[in-house]
Amino acid sequence: MKNSNGLKFIALSGTIDVTENLYVYEYGNDMMIVDCGVGFPDLEMPGVELVLPDFSYIVKNKNKLRGIVVSQGHDDHVGALPFLLKELNAPIWCTPLVTEFLKVKFKDYKVTNYKLNTFNPDRDVFSVGPFNIISFRVTHSVPDTVGFAIDTPEGRVFHVAEHKMDQTSADNMNFDIVKAKKLADEKPVLCLMSDCLGSNSPGFTPSGQSIENNLFNIAKDASQAIYMTAISSSIGRFQQMIRVAQKINRKVVLVGRSVQSKIEIAHDLGYLNYPNDLIIDLKESLNYNPRKLVYIIAGCYGQIGSSVYRLALEEHERVKINKGDTFIFSADPGPAYSKESEDFIVDKLVDLGVDVHYYDLGEGLHVSGHGGQEDIKELFKIVKPKYYIPTGGTIRYMKSYEKLAVSVGAKEEDVFRLKPGESVIFEDGQARRGETIKTKEVLVHGLGIGDIGKVVLTDRTALGKEGVVVAVVKTNKQGKIVARPELTSRGFVFEPGYGGVLDEAAIGLDKTLQSKKLQNNSSIKNLTNQFLEKYFYDKTRRHPMILPVVVEV
Amino acid sequence: MKNSNGLKFIALSGTIDVTENLYVYEYGNDMMIVDCGVGFPDLEMPGVELVLPDFSYIVKNKNKLRGIVVSQGHDDHVGALPFLLKELNAPIWCTPLVTEFLKVKFKDYKVTNYKLNTFNPDRDVFSVGPFNIISFRVTHSVPDTVGFAIDTPEGRVFHVAEHKMDQTSADNMNFDIVKAKKLADEKPVLCLMSDCLGSNSPGFTPSGQSIENNLFNIAKDASQAIYMTAISSSIGRFQQMIRVAQKINRKVVLVGRSVQSKIEIAHDLGYLNYPNDLIIDLKESLNYNPRKLVYIIAGCYGQIGSSVYRLALEEHERVKINKGDTFIFSADPGPAYSKESEDFIVDKLVDLGVDVHYYDLGEGLHVSGHGGQEDIKELFKIVKPKYYIPTGGTIRYMKSYEKLAVSVGAKEEDVFRLKPGESVIFEDGQARRGETIKTKEVLVHGLGIGDIGKVVLTDRTALGKEGVVVAVVKTNKQGKIVARPELTSRGFVFEPGYGGVLDEAAIGLDKTLQSKKLQNNSSIKNLTNQFLEKYFYDKTRRHPMILPVVVEV
Repeated sequence: MKNSNGLKFIALSGTIDVTENLYVYEYGNDMMIVDCGVGFPDLEMPGVELVLPDFSYIVKNKNKLRGIVVSQGHDDHVGALPFLLKELNAPIWCTPLVTEFLKVKFKDYKVTNYKLNTFNPDRDVFSVGPFNIISFRVTHSVPDTVGFAIDTPEGRVFHVAEHKMDQTSADNMNFDIVKAKKLADEKPVLCLMSDCLGSNSPGFTPSGQSIENNLFNIAKDASQAIYMTAISSSIGRFQQMIRVAQKINRKVVLVGRSVQSKIEIAHDLGYLNYPNDLIIDLKESLNYNPRKLVYIIAGCYGQIGSSVYRLALEEHERVKINKGDTFIFSADPGPAYSKESEDFIVDKLVDLGVDVHYYDLGEGLHVSGHGGQEDIKELFKIVKPKYYIPTGGTIRYMKSYEKLAVSVGAKEEDVFRLKPGESVIFEDGQARRGETIKTKEVLVHGLGIGDIGKVVLTDRTALGKEGVVVAVVKTNKQGKIVARPELTSRGFVFEPGYGGVLDEAAIGLDKTLQSKKLQNNSSIKNLTNQFLEKYFYDKTRRHPMILPVVVEV
Repeated sequence: MKNSNGLKFIALSGTIDVTENLYVYEYGNDMMIVDCGVGFPDLEMPGVELVLPDFSYIVKNKNKLRGIVVSQGHDDHVGALPFLLKELNAPIWCTPLVTEFLKVKFKDYKVTNYKLNTFNPDRDVFSVGPFNIISFRVTHSVPDTVGFAIDTPEGRVFHVAEHKMDQTSADNMNFDIVKAKKLADEKPVLCLMSDCLGSNSPGFTPSGQSIENNLFNIAKDASQAIYMTAISSSIGRFQQMIRVAQKINRKVVLVGRSVQSKIEIAHDLGYLNYPNDLIIDLKESLNYNPRKLVYIIAGCYGQIGSSVYRLALEEHERVKINKGDTFIFSADPGPAYSKESEDFIVDKLVDLGVDVHYYDLGEGLHVSGHGGQEDIKELFKIVKPKYYIPTGGTIRYMKSYEKLAVSVGAKEEDVFRLKPGESVIFEDGQARRGETIKTKEVLVHGLGIGDIGKVVLTDRTALGKEGVVVAVVKTNKQGKIVARPELTSRGFVFEPGYGGVLDEAAIGLDKTLQSKKLQNNSSIKNLTNQFLEKYFYDKTRRHPMILPVVVEV
């Protein structure tokens, strides 16, 4: 059945911000989405806790939505699902590990009306509306990550959200090259939608296999307690840590809820293997000599409030780190705001006399989950698509991905670099740009979803950099000033350093207000603003936000 | 003349924050300082523009201060001098390029009472109080950088603030190994104070020589205008850019005051060579075909407001970048807050269709000015000191420097890792820890120097993340509430998204205040705070700062 409008692919989100992956496939009256991730605030979004993609197009068309297909368990691919499911109902298709991760997530968010269809990527085939989907395993930093061959009425496309080609991954879940090749060879592939984040990294992303040996070499010489940390979904990395602990005959203690929960899930699914008595709880660990323990602890970015953070600040309620202990960060630093926190934590630990192994010592303790240039080109060669759409990167990575595609023979015009909301229409084997859906980033702070926009952020930035001065002006019924204005400030100046700048400003403001014939509250406020802005700038070269309050007494 | 208290070396600043270099040598009633740099605010210092080292110890002892010796022209070594010179008077010793940089700086800061003693590092020897100083050239990213052999009454020490061993530097000012070796061999060296920032980087820092060829290879294929940017003091890099422009037969246009000023200074001193008609001004450039021009432009970190920033946002008043132009960033990204800005700018330029060459493409367009592990070890081998003091790094780099010293035969206890204010006493050939001078970081914002402390920063952070709600409560003389409180907010919620949360809060607050017997303003304020904090948290899970204002009407 062919619909004359063709297949529409919309990069609703996920092509400018690395995270917030959300892609729409639409054909006639049917719609499917792939992934639904959150993003994280940048430095221009003070106070914001999460960034969501804009669901409004999906919500508006929710009667067309046949299902949500999920490629992997990281939050930038699944984290926005609880928010979407509050607005609509649609079945979710995902692998076993993602199923368990999502159950925990939905419980946390008190989402109950969901339907999870678990598929086995090695054998199951399923349909979502007019889309027939065959998945294949890909190597990533979390097990059970898959790519999809999607048969649409306009032909077969490949959607590979993240992948490495590594055939020796620590979690033993490797890119199924044979299956992907077969799927690509049995029908011509119209388009490949795939991860571009590694498009500036030369070569293949190295295998994580050697990390185990590097961990072992550090751990075997440790004479006291050993701490190791990694991203909490890095099941393969935890397997390596656990095997190292076994080899050096130590018990493992899990510290932090995220690590504990994910390790238990993976163990229950058989994705993580260890004897049951190897992992002991914190209470039991008190009976052990610390030199017989490896702690696997949450908070590899040194996030404020995390277990690692509290440990380094010697504020953890239950674990204490000591001079001579060994600490291994098996992770690269996070984004800008958390890099500073991680550096702070590393310095704290070094200062405590801990033997710290961290990212910039180059000890081979981490590899990226994203494929490099050769991984990307290898995928191109397997899939041999007619068209290309880079996803999961930013503008620069999309450009570099385009260059890689050109290097394997594509033409520039065969690569569609889409900004959020932009679409491509596939019809009769040809692709063209379609309409652009208007989208915005939806910011989450506390219970507020999407209420914070430019005005609030601009005010926060100004308040945060310059502070605030509240000026209370008392008038009588006729609008005449009846007392000297009172000024209160926060975050502006520390008074002892500035004599009585607020008092002097109040005297000056009083004179100015008295000298004018004032008509109404609004003109009083304007004059107060004008006078104080100039006064404070002249005296301090600062720009506190002025908040005039006129009170009729 | 020997003083029984020995030689005191104080790391007054510069050993935790990479920047803010300020070191004190004290002997009896004489004091000398080496370098006096500024630091830059981290993410926990909103609104702060500069960070100064704490001068109070020097100011308190200013009658002992015989002079200030400067090792190089970067702001983290000289930027705090205008501030120090406002508090005291002391002669400054520096090389020719630093002399000219400082004259410009002092003019900018309206400092007039200064005395600059310019020395030629290839031949001059000078004394500052009881300290006899012989300098020698070192390779760095700015010309005229030197190390010092300092003869003190307790023996000879080496102070090498920053250095690479590279003998093929772009500015032709290379580490004078012969001289340094001779100085180290002719007397035993008591202690080496030296840069530790590269102590985690394996090998030697590569020579910058190959950058010229890499620039050329990009530039020769450019079919339109070429833009190049680097740190504005990178005279050697500018020399390379200028030679490339000559080779491809283009004129050079300088954009941005910092680049213009520094290139002119270096040219006048003969440190930068080009024919006078090679550089043309912006006005003249309008007569040229853009394909005959190379713009050297300021703002390599994409700093907000810089020439590069305005160019990329198409807001520059005098230069316009076009699709197909070439842009070369010959610099690594800056610290966290500017990294985000630089990434933003790179993406903007890529999006405009510019051919952008930036740090993570690995095209060999930049090298660090700091020596790597082998540069540091080479210095150790030349100087062969008895003791070591790492400077210019952070806790982790001091630790890694210690490991390098141990690797060449030092004992751990021969390396003094000093935090700001900590000191070492040298007496009779032995070193021991001395007293710690109490110091704090001095924050600069506008005209305020040091008035911003923990209270203001904490308030700013809270205001910036959560916004503010001002509650005006009107009472009569008896302290009775006479009208419903009025609430105004900024940076808290965007009202349409939140219905009337402020109105509802005002109603609730009114009820609560009316229901209590209130005694005075302070109890009204407390109750207002308590009520609103809880109310807003319950409704929004946010914590705006509450500013209650009680007005008697």
